[in-house]
Amino acid sequence: MLTFEGQKIQGSPNIVSKLTSLPFQQCHHNITTVDCQPSGPAGGMLVFVSGNLQLAGETHALKFSQMFHLMPTPQGSFYVLNDIFRLNYA
Amino acid sequence: MLTFEGQKIQGSPNIVSKLTSLPFQQCHHNITTVDCQPSGPAGGMLVFVSGNLQLAGETHALKFSQMFHLMPTPQGSFYVLNDIFRLNYA
Repeated sequence: MLTFEGQKIQGSPNIVSKLTSLPFQQCHHNITTVDCQPSGPAGGMLVFVSGNLQLAGETHALKFSQMFHLMPTPQGSFYVLNDIFRLNYA
Repeated sequence: MLTFEGQKIQGSPNIVSKLTSLPFQQCHHNITTVDCQPSGPAGGMLVFVSGNLQLAGETHALKFSQMFHLMPTPQGSFYVLNDIFRLNYA
């Protein structure tokens, strides 16, 4: 599930639809910090990221914070169970 | 466990020691956003907070982002399993 600037979106198709409908074509992520912690006995991983977004054609970068909760799959990979994104307005 | 500005601290006594040793006595939290998601079948809850910190005697507020992972106890309460804190520098 994704919470994007407070908007709650569930399910892969809805999340892909949201992310591909954002009103820009190019966005460069400059990551400033990454913090990780194990999330419990199920083998999950919490990832907390902050940084700047540079949109094509825009002078000023936007600051953001985002967290992901990665859960293991039986195949030895991970999937994103939780994703929360916020812009940090100055 | 707590990750505070990148510093990793484990265990309640160490976390209390860290938080009580911060170099100020008063700090007012102004919360701007709160986002929550369930973290999986174990009944946990992810809470993502952003806002401003106003330290006593300081003119300017500091922006911060923080996430908590709350896990249920058998007694029907919750405890903080994960806590990640970052200041958002301008």
